[in-house]
Amino acid sequence: MAEEHSRSSRPIVSLDEFQQLIRTMYFEKDAARGVDGTFMWLMEEVGELAAALRDGSHEDQMEEFADVLAWLTTIANVAGVDLTEAITRKYGAGCPGCGKLACICDDAGKP
Amino acid sequence: MAEEHSRSSRPIVSLDEFQQLIRTMYFEKDAARGVDGTFMWLMEEVGELAAALRDGSHEDQMEEFADVLAWLTTIANVAGVDLTEAITRKYGAGCPGCGKLACICDDAGKP
Repeated sequence: MAEEHSRSSRPIVSLDEFQQLIRTMYFEKDAARGVDGTFMWLMEEVGELAAALRDGSHEDQMEEFADVLAWLTTIANVAGVDLTEAITRKYGAGCPGCGKLACICDDAGKP
Repeated sequence: MAEEHSRSSRPIVSLDEFQQLIRTMYFEKDAARGVDGTFMWLMEEVGELAAALRDGSHEDQMEEFADVLAWLTTIANVAGVDLTEAITRKYGAGCPGCGKLACICDDAGKP
């Protein structure tokens, strides 16, 4: 195999692309449902993620992470929040707690 | 201004880069804490996001979306789940419900 770390059909996906994809797929119905109703779906998926982390296969876990990420993203779309801007502001300069790239905050503290 | 849609210091961030950044920052302490303990932090942040969506400023909402995304990502790191692979499998071929890029699933249904 030419490429040492090749993974089958695994593209590079930017957060922008993903947020736009989710917007294209779901914005119209999510906007009509509103943030509150959409948040309920996020909560259901968070519960399914918890269950998959307890008892699910790796495939199950991948599916539930994808769902939670998609619902989180769709709420960001409805709320008008740009996820790339959000994470760049919060994490672009290292850990918001200690300022280090590899966090050295107290373990009991919130990183 | 030369670029029509320029936003101040807004980079393109891939999901891979973000997952690696969060791994570098927090993997050691998150792995020690384990999935269960880390999930508790995610839940706290989800609560803060709900509060910000009700009463927070746009800045507050950006911060809480960033935090939820970071905690979700750190749990994926501990569980060994690649978020890019997860979303590509689930959403790479359009809506998992109807197969269309712009979802036409029944509104009452789960997209």
